Amino acid sequence: MDYGKFFSADVPSFLRSPVREIFRKVDLSAICSFAGGYPAADTFPVAEIPSLAASVLAKYGTKALQYGATQGVPELREAIAQRYGVPVSQVQITTSSQQGIDVCSRVFLNPGDVVLAHNPVYLGALQSFRAYRAQVIEYASQAKFIYVIPDFNNPSGETMSLEERQEIVRLARELDCLIVEDSPYRELRYSGEPVVSIRELAPERTLQLGSFSKIFAPGFRLGWIIGPEELLEQIYVCKQCLDLCPPVFDQYLATEFLVSGALDRNLQKTIALYKHRRDLMVSLLEKYMPAGVHWTYPEGGLFLWLTLPESVDTVALYDKALAAGVAYVAGSFFYTDGSHCNTMRLNFSFIDEAKMEPGIKLLASLLAQHAD
Amino acid sequence: MDYGKFFSADVPSFLRSPVREIFRKVDLSAICSFAGGYPAADTFPVAEIPSLAASVLAKYGTKALQYGATQGVPELREAIAQRYGVPVSQVQITTSSQQGIDVCSRVFLNPGDVVLAHNPVYLGALQSFRAYRAQVIEYASQAKFIYVIPDFNNPSGETMSLEERQEIVRLARELDCLIVEDSPYRELRYSGEPVVSIRELAPERTLQLGSFSKIFAPGFRLGWIIGPEELLEQIYVCKQCLDLCPPVFDQYLATEFLVSGALDRNLQKTIALYKHRRDLMVSLLEKYMPAGVHWTYPEGGLFLWLTLPESVDTVALYDKALAAGVAYVAGSFFYTDGSHCNTMRLNFSFIDEAKMEPGIKLLASLLAQHAD
Repeated sequence: MDYGKFFSADVPSFLRSPVREIFRKVDLSAICSFAGGYPAADTFPVAEIPSLAASVLAKYGTKALQYGATQGVPELREAIAQRYGVPVSQVQITTSSQQGIDVCSRVFLNPGDVVLAHNPVYLGALQSFRAYRAQVIEYASQAKFIYVIPDFNNPSGETMSLEERQEIVRLARELDCLIVEDSPYRELRYSGEPVVSIRELAPERTLQLGSFSKIFAPGFRLGWIIGPEELLEQIYVCKQCLDLCPPVFDQYLATEFLVSGALDRNLQKTIALYKHRRDLMVSLLEKYMPAGVHWTYPEGGLFLWLTLPESVDTVALYDKALAAGVAYVAGSFFYTDGSHCNTMRLNFSFIDEAKMEPGIKLLASLLAQHAD
Repeated sequence: MDYGKFFSADVPSFLRSPVREIFRKVDLSAICSFAGGYPAADTFPVAEIPSLAASVLAKYGTKALQYGATQGVPELREAIAQRYGVPVSQVQITTSSQQGIDVCSRVFLNPGDVVLAHNPVYLGALQSFRAYRAQVIEYASQAKFIYVIPDFNNPSGETMSLEERQEIVRLARELDCLIVEDSPYRELRYSGEPVVSIRELAPERTLQLGSFSKIFAPGFRLGWIIGPEELLEQIYVCKQCLDLCPPVFDQYLATEFLVSGALDRNLQKTIALYKHRRDLMVSLLEKYMPAGVHWTYPEGGLFLWLTLPESVDTVALYDKALAAGVAYVAGSFFYTDGSHCNTMRLNFSFIDEAKMEPGIKLLASLLAQHAD
């Protein structure tokens, strides 16, 4: 049968995640992989899950297994509202922060609409915007929204200064557009001082996306959106179509984890672990990388970003690197125009620490061979 | 701020679920509600959840808390494939069966495209199709797909005969369109003989949607799609944008519940309970309903459907019914043209059995007053 004719006009714009495609083909545990964006498994509160589950069932009974409200269960919305100092009516729970991006795309974007975003851009967001046939560009005089990860950007690892955030807000007000502030890493700061969030600078036009993936566990697909009630009202109606409601049992687990204080205790351990791994990676880069290789110094998050001599093509180099036993994500995948082939994203949260030195050594020697 | 200008062209087509709107306003536990479509809480394996969770963590460790494959974890796909006798490559796990409907709409429907569906139609499906600005109609010479719940239809409770299923397949082949066979209730049969599924009659053009909501618990948002690999491949790429992957921990809980045999044991108890409730409701309708009221006799599922004298308007009657202490869903909500105001849907799975007789009595006396 010829199935091609059945697909909608959006389908040709669907972009496969090169990262997920790598995972389909290669057993990453067998090599030194700096490719994924996974949190370290050591940060998951495995030992606490059984008691969390028991206290969820004791407290909420069958309610924890039944359908729930489309906006999320009231207890979790309340906990998020308190943590971030906003009214409950401004909190929508999502089935992952990726769904937050998707639902914003669905509620705001028509084919041809403009999303403003600075390159390099988070791949999951690029996928969503393109799937709705929006244009993702860096400068325009009209736009539906500005998309930004101000804290420890994925992929670059960079953090926006207060002045840069104020500039985003000024631009959004000038263009009269919204801001989608994607904040999955905001609580993972290892050094430097926190900068005020864009939502706090422009609450009237910002949708801030949060995630439990990096502060609890990604196996629970849970995130949230904080934003103006008028916008959340349409997101609520849209979410009825998407999946009726976020996973209820998982929401109660997250509630227990958060309100008991266990989340904050776990977060301190996570921060200590990731700070160590960031420092280790930076020291290894300094030790092994040949001249002409530069990297960002992330104050938090999971990634750093390498810029290599112009002669190196990280896409072309990828299969050689894999064969040698090291994986990364080529930087050009994060560019809306596929440019910047001399860049790559390295993840420091997930890799086994014992593999970090051999991995960076391998990568450095490959780069030394291929930079003229 | 005027937020209206930010919304996409799809937004005016978003339809609020009148059922979910009722739940927002009324404490249904205080009245006799036949309105929702919830499974009975007694059917949830509450006592087994802690040991399921423990064995998931013992068997899969941190993998159960990490990101997973977009298609679903291999263990659950394998279990579903075995249960339904299909290859693993034809199974996509979804974050709820509602997401199955949404992703099919997204991958196949353009604005203006035709979905064929017989009235009355499941509301969640109507919401999804309309949100993509598709036309939902009963007869047409061109269509993207035919949408059908052949077993114990929501809302009508009716089951299609083999001949009716063959007629659907014949029509789909004539129009060269797909079939979306929505099967959330298929395993809940209380009497009569199983009829072959449409997927088995036309595997080359059928996407069959399954759900754990009625055979495990809806608080885990888990379903699946069985269909041709070529179609699932695009659904897989689309699902990356939606939420990256289905909830991983919940998928492992479902796997354990299924492969241990606990699901089938629990299903037998669920069937016995619901059969009793169906029989009770039918006997109460026979006892109390005035002349001129007719109902379907469902062989399974959660609903039956009442047809009243033409003079009764169930939408107009609704507030009176609520004030008197009984809730239902007006049938016209399930009609694409809002017609059939003299019908209603009654749910028999969720209501406290002690409330069933007073509820049906109340409803019968209201109907007797309002039928001329």
